[in-house]
Amino acid sequence: MKRPSSSAPHPFDEAVALAPRANTADAPAANTPWQFDGHTHPDYGNMVGPFGGITAAQALQAILQHPQRLGEPVSFTVNFAAGLADGPFRVEACPVRTNRSTQHWTLTLWQTGSDGVDAVMLTGTAVTAVRRATWSAVDAPMPVAASPTDIASAPFTDKVRWVGRYDMRLVAGALPLHWDGVEADSLTQLWLRDNPPRQLDYASLTALADAFFPRIWRRRARMTPIGTVSMTVYYHAGADELAAVGEGHLFGQARSQSFFNGFFDQSAQLWSEAGHLLATTHQIVYYKE
Amino acid sequence: MKRPSSSAPHPFDEAVALAPRANTADAPAANTPWQFDGHTHPDYGNMVGPFGGITAAQALQAILQHPQRLGEPVSFTVNFAAGLADGPFRVEACPVRTNRSTQHWTLTLWQTGSDGVDAVMLTGTAVTAVRRATWSAVDAPMPVAASPTDIASAPFTDKVRWVGRYDMRLVAGALPLHWDGVEADSLTQLWLRDNPPRQLDYASLTALADAFFPRIWRRRARMTPIGTVSMTVYYHAGADELAAVGEGHLFGQARSQSFFNGFFDQSAQLWSEAGHLLATTHQIVYYKE
Repeated sequence: MKRPSSSAPHPFDEAVALAPRANTADAPAANTPWQFDGHTHPDYGNMVGPFGGITAAQALQAILQHPQRLGEPVSFTVNFAAGLADGPFRVEACPVRTNRSTQHWTLTLWQTGSDGVDAVMLTGTAVTAVRRATWSAVDAPMPVAASPTDIASAPFTDKVRWVGRYDMRLVAGALPLHWDGVEADSLTQLWLRDNPPRQLDYASLTALADAFFPRIWRRRARMTPIGTVSMTVYYHAGADELAAVGEGHLFGQARSQSFFNGFFDQSAQLWSEAGHLLATTHQIVYYKE
Repeated sequence: MKRPSSSAPHPFDEAVALAPRANTADAPAANTPWQFDGHTHPDYGNMVGPFGGITAAQALQAILQHPQRLGEPVSFTVNFAAGLADGPFRVEACPVRTNRSTQHWTLTLWQTGSDGVDAVMLTGTAVTAVRRATWSAVDAPMPVAASPTDIASAPFTDKVRWVGRYDMRLVAGALPLHWDGVEADSLTQLWLRDNPPRQLDYASLTALADAFFPRIWRRRARMTPIGTVSMTVYYHAGADELAAVGEGHLFGQARSQSFFNGFFDQSAQLWSEAGHLLATTHQIVYYKE
């Protein structure tokens, strides 16, 4: 499943590359915020500004690159306070409490506005932990579906750049063929992975958690403007389980439970092809009408 | 459904009462953190320290009492960085970004340790919003169940004080009768409300979101030590919908999707008896073995 080696870096790796700020380049004292410079990436552009999943991955990356990090991500929440503009940003990860085997993080991401003032664009929190082997079980088994090699790759839309960065193979729950307002269920199932393929890691898994098209578009067959307000990812895999996935496809499933006065939720699961539930993820999304 | 009037305040109201700190008593400038003093309440005690749901409600209360609050809660995430001790705490709510109709919050809660040093016990984020009436739909209908008046109130355990503060009427998915390690599903359904009854509001709904007994106890029939690490609540109701519930029962349903190397998830729903999905909630929970 390895793609041909190439001297060009993967666009995802370019996108999540963060540069530590000079003022934090030395080894920090305990519980020190650490700031990084990053930049939106044109390959992950959305209709306006960047794809939210890549912004979430960039924010998580600040934790992953923090020299005091303890363990691996267990829980991650990001709140999109405003739509990012294409351009540079600054992100800070702070380990506010470090316990014996768990660590609690806060996150802030700023962009400098045209007025020269830094504005908060994203807030977040995370928990990392050193996991121990315990009794384990998956209570949400992967739905039965055709193999990804038996389904053609077909993006849901080519209107935005970021969609081209994912190989999506639909199993059930397409976008409406006709935007005629005929209501359907909100469920979508698909195989998905990075395009070109890339070894799965926590950052790419986080971006994949936001790769489902908006549930309300399927539910209503109406092109309502939307924007994710808050997203949470729970990771149910260690680095070994992610390494075992390699560049393989993930099975994704997403659905909504409530659409109420301007906000709907989405709950989703991402399994490895071997049936390991790698992540469960939830988000709440603004919709206009 | 009104309970007899009484001069004694409800223990929940006592528990979530916060006193603004003197240094923030004046009207703050825009985006000013606001600090409050609070105290754990003996009626909501857990095996050690307080019930996590009451701590979450107390943290939300700091936002609800902030003089700059815009709108009603839409999304709320709390991370339990350490187990609270019985005693006083300090909580800060900061509106880090205020948009036209949404507002983004960060939360921190501290306790002073025996060494005299303030330690972070909880972090959190929230989004509040001024909702507008839009097309709405519930895609997670309330399961069919006997009426709460036809089911006896029976707490799952009387080992801890906080359980007595809830009227719980089991529909399906009890605690194991025998702690014999025979595995079952992780689903529980029940009617629940405050005890004594109390008008539902955002703070009490938040506490109710954490009132399910640990999924792993049912799943494994084994009394594993656990602790919630992070909890998110999405609110799908405005103040009018909460007022319509009054002191009525909520139908709650909770289940897990993954138990993996020390952490399991829980996804839950809370409906009004009339079938309005008031909140969906997710948490990730540490388990020992």
